[in-house]
Amino acid sequence: MAQRAGEQRQARGPKEKVLTLDSMNPCVQRVEYAVRGPIVARALELEQELLQGVKKPFSEVVRANIGDAQAMGQKPITFLRQVLALCINPNLLHSADFPADAKTRAERILQACGGHSLGAYSISSGIQLIREDVARYIQSRDGGIPADPSNIFLSTGASDAIVTVLKLLVAGEGRTRTGVLIPIPQYPLYSAALAELDAVQVDYYLDEERAWALDVAELRRAVRQARDHCCPRALCVINPGNPTGQVQTRECIEAVIRFAFEERLFLLADEVYQDNVYAEGSQFHSFKKVLKEMGSPYSEQQELASFHSASKGYMGECGFRGGYVEVVNMDPAVKQQMLKLVSVRLCPPVPGQALLDMVVNPPAPSDPSFAQFQAERQTVLAELAAKAKLTEQVFNAAPGIHCNPVQGAMYSFPRVELPPRAVRRAQELGMAPDMFFCLRLLEETGICVVPGSGFGQREGTYHFRMTILPPMEKLRPLLEKLSHFHAKFTQEYS
Amino acid sequence: MAQRAGEQRQARGPKEKVLTLDSMNPCVQRVEYAVRGPIVARALELEQELLQGVKKPFSEVVRANIGDAQAMGQKPITFLRQVLALCINPNLLHSADFPADAKTRAERILQACGGHSLGAYSISSGIQLIREDVARYIQSRDGGIPADPSNIFLSTGASDAIVTVLKLLVAGEGRTRTGVLIPIPQYPLYSAALAELDAVQVDYYLDEERAWALDVAELRRAVRQARDHCCPRALCVINPGNPTGQVQTRECIEAVIRFAFEERLFLLADEVYQDNVYAEGSQFHSFKKVLKEMGSPYSEQQELASFHSASKGYMGECGFRGGYVEVVNMDPAVKQQMLKLVSVRLCPPVPGQALLDMVVNPPAPSDPSFAQFQAERQTVLAELAAKAKLTEQVFNAAPGIHCNPVQGAMYSFPRVELPPRAVRRAQELGMAPDMFFCLRLLEETGICVVPGSGFGQREGTYHFRMTILPPMEKLRPLLEKLSHFHAKFTQEYS
Repeated sequence: MAQRAGEQRQARGPKEKVLTLDSMNPCVQRVEYAVRGPIVARALELEQELLQGVKKPFSEVVRANIGDAQAMGQKPITFLRQVLALCINPNLLHSADFPADAKTRAERILQACGGHSLGAYSISSGIQLIREDVARYIQSRDGGIPADPSNIFLSTGASDAIVTVLKLLVAGEGRTRTGVLIPIPQYPLYSAALAELDAVQVDYYLDEERAWALDVAELRRAVRQARDHCCPRALCVINPGNPTGQVQTRECIEAVIRFAFEERLFLLADEVYQDNVYAEGSQFHSFKKVLKEMGSPYSEQQELASFHSASKGYMGECGFRGGYVEVVNMDPAVKQQMLKLVSVRLCPPVPGQALLDMVVNPPAPSDPSFAQFQAERQTVLAELAAKAKLTEQVFNAAPGIHCNPVQGAMYSFPRVELPPRAVRRAQELGMAPDMFFCLRLLEETGICVVPGSGFGQREGTYHFRMTILPPMEKLRPLLEKLSHFHAKFTQEYS
Repeated sequence: MAQRAGEQRQARGPKEKVLTLDSMNPCVQRVEYAVRGPIVARALELEQELLQGVKKPFSEVVRANIGDAQAMGQKPITFLRQVLALCINPNLLHSADFPADAKTRAERILQACGGHSLGAYSISSGIQLIREDVARYIQSRDGGIPADPSNIFLSTGASDAIVTVLKLLVAGEGRTRTGVLIPIPQYPLYSAALAELDAVQVDYYLDEERAWALDVAELRRAVRQARDHCCPRALCVINPGNPTGQVQTRECIEAVIRFAFEERLFLLADEVYQDNVYAEGSQFHSFKKVLKEMGSPYSEQQELASFHSASKGYMGECGFRGGYVEVVNMDPAVKQQMLKLVSVRLCPPVPGQALLDMVVNPPAPSDPSFAQFQAERQTVLAELAAKAKLTEQVFNAAPGIHCNPVQGAMYSFPRVELPPRAVRRAQELGMAPDMFFCLRLLEETGICVVPGSGFGQREGTYHFRMTILPPMEKLRPLLEKLSHFHAKFTQEYS
């Protein structure tokens, strides 16, 4: 039919396009990515309108939708940028403006580059020296448990590595098609990648009543139900949690590993917020360390991929797209396939690789740059901790808003009560109720947050994700404005 | 069966891995990428052996396998690196070591970045200002034909953009599955991406006897035959050619556009070597310009994506992974889908975006940096032209080697005659004959080139791809050594 319509139109006038919504890749059409979805497009429009002098009930749009620290005013860590500038423009190695250790570090990285230049391709898994530094970092983070550079693949941000590993895992048709367990709420890269790869998304719900804890009984329910219609072969865990801010206990991680082992699931541990842990009593435990300490048979059999990034932590260098994955207990033949796969894209951006090197190998106490580096790092992390606490406090003081403690990462994910009339109004507009709430919030306050429906949530509950990144002096008024708007909105629809 | 075997093994001892060659994504297994294939792995091993003092018949491995100019000793263009260093470390804006125009340019780019930092994410299609500069570049390149910034998507090298556009195009099952026409010989990104996306590769052969020209009759043969088993929906053209070095005439491009229009094919024009044209009488014509100048109905209907990169040209900044695609006549709804798709990966590396900005917007004649920039640029391009000519001359002087003129790009792709005994020996070893030749060449001379079988070639012909990038003083001895080795090899197997 579509073809006949096309032929008719061709006879009459302009041809139909070759590539249309009807003819394009249906998997791509199913992709959704709320963090940069319609609400952010509207925020951009509002910014343009403000620039054009259109009157609004606010003077600026605050983008609290994305974990982009430097866009929110966080200053880059001096040492990182010094070394990178030296790498990019080695003439500066003669300049008196740079500390000696920054120069040594730049020279060390350039020695490891083709033609001693960041402008050459690296090998596809990333510069050997940097992969060795990553391995040493992991080993020291994990209390001496060894890491092998040949298990490290540098990547274009963590996202790239996550998609690569998922890509390896997708196979089968119909009931044998790969199912991948992801938390709900999740970071929507996962749902987007699974849609694009035409894999089966298998949801397991985090327990909001227990500060978004992961419950193995719920994992079991999810995997058992999924076996009816697909073949679950992988389990994704985000720790510290995005968007939940939850930090998993060691006991929880052990239970997850035991579960993955029993159910024969490849584990993907998204640990990009490993440096972002704020709450007292919370501590980051890497899946790799727990796995290895559990001993046989887990330590030598359970397959694991752990992801890290230069975009988060204290550095927030999102724009450089530096990241890595460590694969553990991966079949050597599959590792070869992974190497081949990444080689098609040649290599991750080399400046991002160089920057990652500073993250995994920061100045040592004896280095001239240590004091300043350490002070800058601590300032950022202390401020994030204070903002995490403040967010929880202000939101929980507001009637109808319930906010779990932001133990780690960079987000709060509060639950908001929405009056039934508002829910009905949203439904009339063909919109998720929390999308309706967030759009109204944006239009009236300029605050841009992402509706919970973009991350997934239990039916009938409503949330939004807001970053804790705005500068302290802005954050409190922002939180109060948001709480105030919620009260007003509730009244309006009551 | 596989599952039962797994269960038995589980009872006895270690479990099977979840992810194995048997269980992994079969599309990924079919991916091949010769430019970084087994021959390059062997080259790396040989380098290690040399470092360890193992005696070899050569003192260094020469990697003529990949278009990586700076790895071959080409120096970065000063202005590009100055601006980038200023962007990365804005403290340098006060330094007397940088020219005023470099500072102005860095400030202009930083103004366009979130938080005035390269460390913030950009919008997913790339920084607006840089997309405007790209549009101006295209407009001026194409003699004033307008380009719209909203049709420009910056990318992580051109490869990323090529895969994105192919991804949009893949749909259907069985006989309706998308077929994509690619040249043979091709750059193996295309075959690799099509394998990964499970699309149907449709080969059309370039005419070696006419300097690798593209022949529309051959396109027609390919598409007609393909319609029996798939739905051809896209046509890829590489101009200047990789690996062929061919530069297409304007007439040829017109014919290709007419053909694509008649056959309803989306056009992908890989134009990353647009600055690399050397031969007298050869000139780069962009598909966009020709398309627009052909007028109605082509100019407003034929869909086209044109790719460019910061990795090639005179700058050779491969490591920064800067690139872009311009889409022409794309359905606006599909463009929205493309924007959504790229947003999942957040943004292309921002340093690569900044570098690309200098490429599309170099110093103007009135700028302090102009003279030096222009001199550096010309030196690189003049040397490449001389090396292109030298390559053709030396190879054609060798019996049994036939080399088409290297009109553009960075490669020669000579045909080598291989004696029947050598072909049989290779077959015994389960190897393509030209792989056998190239491996022997590597082992005996240290010269690393890629066998023609990695790019595709007519049955019974043998080629290799060699870059023209080694420095002039090395290139002549290299070419002579290679020719000499071929003579020796021929004798050995005669």
